Amino acid sequence: MKQSLGVCYYPEHWPRSMWESDAANMVAAGLSWVRIGEFAWSRIEPQPGSFDFAWLDDAISVLSDAGLRIVLGTPTCTPPAWMADKYPDMFAHDARGHIRGFGSRRHYCFSHAGYRAEAGRIAEILGDRYGRDPRIHAWQIDNEYGCHDTVLSWSPAARDAFRHWLAATYGDTDTLNTAWGNVFWSMEYSSFDQIGLPNLTVTQPNPSHELAFRRFSSDQVVRWHEVQVDALRARTDAPLIHNYMGRVLDFDHFDVGRSIDIASWDSYPIGFLSDRLEASPERRAQYLQQGDPDMQAFHHDLYRAVGRDGRWWVMEQQPGPVNWAPYNPAPLPGMVRLWTWEAFAHGAEVVSYFRWRQAPFAQEQMHAGLRRPDDAPAPGLDEAARVAQELSEMPAVEQVQAPVALIFDYPSEWAWATLPQGADFSYFRLVLDCYRALRRSGLSVDILPSSARAFDGYRLVLAPGIASVPDALFRALGDRSVVFGPRMNAVTRELTIPDPMGPAVPELDVTVTRVESLPPGTRRAVAGGGAVHRWMETLEGSATAVISDLQGAAVLVGDGTAYYLGGWPDPELWKRIISEIAPNAGLDVSELPPGLRIRDTKTLRFAFNYGSEAVEYNGETIPAAGVTWWPHQPMDCA
Amino acid sequence: MKQSLGVCYYPEHWPRSMWESDAANMVAAGLSWVRIGEFAWSRIEPQPGSFDFAWLDDAISVLSDAGLRIVLGTPTCTPPAWMADKYPDMFAHDARGHIRGFGSRRHYCFSHAGYRAEAGRIAEILGDRYGRDPRIHAWQIDNEYGCHDTVLSWSPAARDAFRHWLAATYGDTDTLNTAWGNVFWSMEYSSFDQIGLPNLTVTQPNPSHELAFRRFSSDQVVRWHEVQVDALRARTDAPLIHNYMGRVLDFDHFDVGRSIDIASWDSYPIGFLSDRLEASPERRAQYLQQGDPDMQAFHHDLYRAVGRDGRWWVMEQQPGPVNWAPYNPAPLPGMVRLWTWEAFAHGAEVVSYFRWRQAPFAQEQMHAGLRRPDDAPAPGLDEAARVAQELSEMPAVEQVQAPVALIFDYPSEWAWATLPQGADFSYFRLVLDCYRALRRSGLSVDILPSSARAFDGYRLVLAPGIASVPDALFRALGDRSVVFGPRMNAVTRELTIPDPMGPAVPELDVTVTRVESLPPGTRRAVAGGGAVHRWMETLEGSATAVISDLQGAAVLVGDGTAYYLGGWPDPELWKRIISEIAPNAGLDVSELPPGLRIRDTKTLRFAFNYGSEAVEYNGETIPAAGVTWWPHQPMDCA
Amino acid sequence: MKQSLGVCYYPEHWPRSMWESDAANMVAAGLSWVRIGEFAWSRIEPQPGSFDFAWLDDAISVLSDAGLRIVLGTPTCTPPAWMADKYPDMFAHDARGHIRGFGSRRHYCFSHAGYRAEAGRIAEILGDRYGRDPRIHAWQIDNEYGCHDTVLSWSPAARDAFRHWLAATYGDTDTLNTAWGNVFWSMEYSSFDQIGLPNLTVTQPNPSHELAFRRFSSDQVVRWHEVQVDALRARTDAPLIHNYMGRVLDFDHFDVGRSIDIASWDSYPIGFLSDRLEASPERRAQYLQQGDPDMQAFHHDLYRAVGRDGRWWVMEQQPGPVNWAPYNPAPLPGMVRLWTWEAFAHGAEVVSYFRWRQAPFAQEQMHAGLRRPDDAPAPGLDEAARVAQELSEMPAVEQVQAPVALIFDYPSEWAWATLPQGADFSYFRLVLDCYRALRRSGLSVDILPSSARAFDGYRLVLAPGIASVPDALFRALGDRSVVFGPRMNAVTRELTIPDPMGPAVPELDVTVTRVESLPPGTRRAVAGGGAVHRWMETLEGSATAVISDLQGAAVLVGDGTAYYLGGWPDPELWKRIISEIAPNAGLDVSELPPGLRIRDTKTLRFAFNYGSEAVEYNGETIPAAGVTWWPHQPMDCA
Ligand SMILES: [Zn+2]
Ligand SMILES: [Zn+2]
Ligand SMILES: [Zn+2]
Repeated sequence: MKQSLGVCYYPEHWPRSMWESDAANMVAAGLSWVRIGEFAWSRIEPQPGSFDFAWLDDAISVLSDAGLRIVLGTPTCTPPAWMADKYPDMFAHDARGHIRGFGSRRHYCFSHAGYRAEAGRIAEILGDRYGRDPRIHAWQIDNEYGCHDTVLSWSPAARDAFRHWLAATYGDTDTLNTAWGNVFWSMEYSSFDQIGLPNLTVTQPNPSHELAFRRFSSDQVVRWHEVQVDALRARTDAPLIHNYMGRVLDFDHFDVGRSIDIASWDSYPIGFLSDRLEASPERRAQYLQQGDPDMQAFHHDLYRAVGRDGRWWVMEQQPGPVNWAPYNPAPLPGMVRLWTWEAFAHGAEVVSYFRWRQAPFAQEQMHAGLRRPDDAPAPGLDEAARVAQELSEMPAVEQVQAPVALIFDYPSEWAWATLPQGADFSYFRLVLDCYRALRRSGLSVDILPSSARAFDGYRLVLAPGIASVPDALFRALGDRSVVFGPRMNAVTRELTIPDPMGPAVPELDVTVTRVESLPPGTRRAVAGGGAVHRWMETLEGSATAVISDLQGAAVLVGDGTAYYLGGWPDPELWKRIISEIAPNAGLDVSELPPGLRIRDTKTLRFAFNYGSEAVEYNGETIPAAGVTWWPHQPMDCA
Repeated sequence: MKQSLGVCYYPEHWPRSMWESDAANMVAAGLSWVRIGEFAWSRIEPQPGSFDFAWLDDAISVLSDAGLRIVLGTPTCTPPAWMADKYPDMFAHDARGHIRGFGSRRHYCFSHAGYRAEAGRIAEILGDRYGRDPRIHAWQIDNEYGCHDTVLSWSPAARDAFRHWLAATYGDTDTLNTAWGNVFWSMEYSSFDQIGLPNLTVTQPNPSHELAFRRFSSDQVVRWHEVQVDALRARTDAPLIHNYMGRVLDFDHFDVGRSIDIASWDSYPIGFLSDRLEASPERRAQYLQQGDPDMQAFHHDLYRAVGRDGRWWVMEQQPGPVNWAPYNPAPLPGMVRLWTWEAFAHGAEVVSYFRWRQAPFAQEQMHAGLRRPDDAPAPGLDEAARVAQELSEMPAVEQVQAPVALIFDYPSEWAWATLPQGADFSYFRLVLDCYRALRRSGLSVDILPSSARAFDGYRLVLAPGIASVPDALFRALGDRSVVFGPRMNAVTRELTIPDPMGPAVPELDVTVTRVESLPPGTRRAVAGGGAVHRWMETLEGSATAVISDLQGAAVLVGDGTAYYLGGWPDPELWKRIISEIAPNAGLDVSELPPGLRIRDTKTLRFAFNYGSEAVEYNGETIPAAGVTWWPHQPMDCA
Repeated sequence: MKQSLGVCYYPEHWPRSMWESDAANMVAAGLSWVRIGEFAWSRIEPQPGSFDFAWLDDAISVLSDAGLRIVLGTPTCTPPAWMADKYPDMFAHDARGHIRGFGSRRHYCFSHAGYRAEAGRIAEILGDRYGRDPRIHAWQIDNEYGCHDTVLSWSPAARDAFRHWLAATYGDTDTLNTAWGNVFWSMEYSSFDQIGLPNLTVTQPNPSHELAFRRFSSDQVVRWHEVQVDALRARTDAPLIHNYMGRVLDFDHFDVGRSIDIASWDSYPIGFLSDRLEASPERRAQYLQQGDPDMQAFHHDLYRAVGRDGRWWVMEQQPGPVNWAPYNPAPLPGMVRLWTWEAFAHGAEVVSYFRWRQAPFAQEQMHAGLRRPDDAPAPGLDEAARVAQELSEMPAVEQVQAPVALIFDYPSEWAWATLPQGADFSYFRLVLDCYRALRRSGLSVDILPSSARAFDGYRLVLAPGIASVPDALFRALGDRSVVFGPRMNAVTRELTIPDPMGPAVPELDVTVTRVESLPPGTRRAVAGGGAVHRWMETLEGSATAVISDLQGAAVLVGDGTAYYLGGWPDPELWKRIISEIAPNAGLDVSELPPGLRIRDTKTLRFAFNYGSEAVEYNGETIPAAGVTWWPHQPMDCA
């Protein structure tokens, strides 16, 4: 399928007189998709049961007549004021017990049955009207689940639903008490009605209690989501999509993705570097107008795994400065094009910019669009048009299996967020550090869920930080090169310590007998260069030490195919580990210049320069914010 | 009018036996004013409707008989415990919804009608008793509106009053929905009763909603205030005063000031440097015992504009260490005198020290007075007496119009606090940076409200950061040298983006097409020296670039009289801008030594050394914490 | 009495089949004590009034039969879920008013009469069953009062009890109003029912109000505690113990200790350095795996004073990494032995490790034990066994009075926490700084309460920061060398300023006329070396200045025996002060190498190397984490 471009558009924000020229300008810029409707409930159903579809029919006609394919959103992330009147208890509560009320968006608790039914009702109504309309080429359900920390809710509705979930999960309180170790501190329950949410306790609650609440909360998102999926599946054959966010980890995206067709995500590279990534001030300054060089690619690769058959889009692409990060600089000239091509290189079918024209009002009035509020073109528009032109001049970019697989597992994020043991221990960060090291070595990577069982073709698999590994995964990995750890199999699925203790790697005699978390600024230097920081394990057993610290304690043990890593490597140690293992795995690696990243597709190698200076690579000078590609035959996967 | 000194005194805190000697000692030190009564409600009306005026009558007699002029305060910032019993719902709530109850001061919500009436009642009673008493030379209404963040209240009373204010302001919800852009995120209302206060939302509320709440909150202060003004106006001819605070910006002081006669403020230079000014650790250490060299002068000039006919006082002057800042060092010897003379040089009629004697109990027991708790003289007393002596030996200091005007606009503070776009964007700080640059260049400055229309005599006007400029202001400025921007006219009064986009400076072809906020530590260097930090605008149009950045982007454009500044200058760039423009405007500027500041009056030039080392200036050696003056003819204003 | 070792054990956490081998292994390791039961309420009384003692009887038999002496804990810090059902209002509230509910531990308000009675009831029931059982050699009441900030509760129960306490303390509101200075800000009350808890005020509450609440809160702990003391005293002759915590200061430990027999505390050196001590990042890194070299010794000396007749234990000793600090590194090899010996050198009768085996579940699953979760020995076990062996080879370590006394006074902590005047002023830290300086000079120290009156044998007494000194203390000190101050007698017991102002040292003419707090990074250099930081007083009077600052202001005044210190010395100044005074007091001092500490007992000098490098001392090389001792005759106390 040929890659294409799109844009997010809000006809309800603009005078009717602008719609035709907007549509014509979109087409002129080379855009072929337009997403509409996802925040428009108050215009579709201004009063309960009273609908106004005239404007929406009209907008669909105008856009479609201009040649655009439409993605229609269900507006369930912004219930109107009358809904809040009808269900005053529909809101989430924060962990302190305060209501999170009307006045912005995502003001609902996933556990509120009344609102869940209303969301199903509006999906049915929209499905009835537009489900067979050929102008609607895809559907988006809700918008950015989990954005603004909305998965975890401490509302009465959530508490009641949690008790039902516990009863269904454990059957009786004795089973639950045993599973959680509630004998500790006399926390035993004799009735599910005694069990509260794990907030407002004197000191930390039982981690098993908290993990159960996190699993429940993820399940509630899935359950909520599937009400709309069911409503739409019965009414349309168009693909169903949800637009995920960056580093939102409170629900299992693989579970949500299972019932729909295409994964998409909202990519805001500069905003994310500012508001959700750990980085030194120097690094923030270095990538201030570009974004982190691995954050986007990581999510591209992640959501390619979430999408059915690898189908995924960028539903919202940052086109200029945003409004919501602590500081909001502009992208370097060229970055909008770079980001777009990077998505295509990683397999995106569509990249859709957010938004067509900067709104002159409300919360996002300082969020750039492809056009300015006065309708003049903004700098991003030219870059989008250039990509459209480039796309038109070449065949489709085709994906190929990467030589390296990296496993990403949402429950591990919850486990270590619940039981960090070190204040800055983050599963996501650990995996991103590993991903970054692979990419700096020039490798293309596939991300897989921990439920993956098909590893044919991968020369190397990495599985850092997986809290509880299913035995079947070990079996499926066979005897290919795999790097496990740190912190693998350190807990059961109930967040208790297994006996025998982890990591329980088949045929590798190693046990983690003690762990240490290290504060920022401290490290354990490793013989030969590099260091462990943040997390250090004591390894026992007969497995061969491949890398050890200066005191002779093993840091990496392995037998030439299976390896276990007993610490959190710094970048230099990551590089050594990859250099150590890659040759055996039949992988060529070489360190890329800082800021440069490459991605191999079926016939091309793409190179992206996230740096603010030109770099030399492969005999070419790639300018700052530059992207280039050339024919390339990736290594054979076998 | 000859300048004079005063002091704040609490006879109710001391045995009756000390009053006569206190009064005599005040007079002996050269003080002529004494403020009393503003916290004494529980002694004036110990039980509801039951009054005890004997002690107050007595105190007034003692003080007046000693030759002191009395300022009598209404005690409405400290309602007694019985008031809280009577109106359990009279308290403000914080943004999380928690009550801000009895037990300190300012424990009332400006929107509570019951308490507002009680405040009017006590003002009437005091007015009835003392309004025609010639010993009462002035009245202070309440105390430090807005101190302890008390303007914004999220109480039920505030919510109800806000709905009425909205109904009165917008008439119907359609108008409000359109004005605020509530179509965004389906935030449209069909009834004013659906509108809550802009707190406890999932993510940020609509900025228009928040700005309306800020405007409402300021109006509530004015409305509350005028109940007492009306009560007293009918009962006295003495001037009415309120004592404002430093950097309290949540209400429009010009609006409060309109109904009264004299502006006053409470000047705590060392406390303010510690608790409410941005400064590097080095700068904090440099001015640890002196206070920021521009903070006091800025407020002097600001409140001179707030006072009717330029009448203003310092009602409370720091006399030694305070108790309420994070750290409370002592002033360098000489600073109490310096601060006092600085106020007179800027036009204060009276400087009144807070307080006569350090209280041995309660919240402010560690706050220095002119006398120690054991009644021995504290270091500040000698300095006050020295000023009194100096005053007695010279004629009145007379004010003269400054050559430079700087516009200060409270609604702009609210606009940018609501929509900062960069986490450290502060309107106040922007204006203070500009003021500091002018002062470091040796210029005296008048501060004017954005409602000012009389600019005769000003050679240069600066108007940084004004969110929405009335057209009439442009007309009034005529063709004198004016520096506008940054961020001027960037929004409408409803906090939406205007079309055409700002700054809309007449006859200057410049449009701000994009803005960027820059994190601390990053900057855009400017050709020729200096840099923009924090805020950078992209300027388009045919206006001549006077200063550009290293990439050639215009930073300052202008035609020789009107200039637009598209960024937040660092100190060096501010200096360059002033050096660039001053000669054309007929102003002589030269950089003063660090820590030295000058102020020109009708016949004198004063110099103040805020530094901790002596400096050479004008052929004199001015010691640390020194003040000096000499005859000087300011430049002709025409 | 010969020193011995113990361990904390939770039979209810483990299969019955492990108990015998556990007991045998304890004995084999040289342990003689085992603490059980303190968290087991839900197993002892699974439903209200329905008891299961079979398992506990069994466990006692197994442990005792193996030769272990048992400490039985009352389980009142972990009331079961049914208790929360019975008393839904039994919980403490935090200062914002939020409930601190069920789900962890210490979930009760000390002021809740219903739960207090339940705690007495379970103590009676346990006392009835086991009070005369000879296998129970000691009782522990509750667990770690005050841990997790549980002393101060803002619950309705606390508010009501506070009103009664106030009525009982002050008799009438006039007396209270006068004592607190409530005339200030019209805070006067006419009924005790008007008085709330000092939270949720607009700005700080009256410090006298807050101090009264702190005194009340401490009294509530004592009252709560004594209900169980009374229940057990009537039923057993075994000694009663409570296990205190490190740097928990919200209740007066001397008051709690008065009714029981043995003080004990829970010593977590590495956790405490990470979570409750001020230290630079460099210092944290230096002692990362050892803990602060003075924190443990300070508490040893403190709790020796709290215990009746100097009897004290370490009830819980860190044996490896803990789970609850921000970062949790492992102890250096040797530290478990060092900590144990250090406790014995300071007079501990028993050191008991927490815990026998690491639990595989619940909140503390990452907390090391002497054995791993898989029952293999953990590194701490060998070190414990080595200490047991060493103990068996030598006579009992006997205590001797130290030559130096340091006074510690809980009400002073409350006073300065309430009225810090400088944001980082901490009484505890001030005293610890002083203690550290004494120890770095090689001195052994006794800590005494401010109620101490027997000072025979002390050559030097230090009394820093005591808010209100009883006259009788001055008399008791006689004419031995004493260093008072800073901040001594600066307030009355009601937290108001006395007249005359402090420090009121008999026969030393010095008055503190002004105080200053100094922000971090600023200092007042002292002539001859060193500096004052954080706190600086202005001293007046005829007392001789012994040390002055560079401007000539006195910092230390004295007459050769009594000294007053008018500031907070940095380490170098502390060293100078001790060097100045020690010779006159007949004390030999010399600076120890960094990280080395010594402690003298009746016949031995112990040396402990907290450093991570070996040090030379007394002709010996003491390795990192090493401890050594040799015969030594301490100086004669007369
Ligand atoms: Zn979005
Ligand atoms: Zn709250
Ligand atoms: Zn004041």
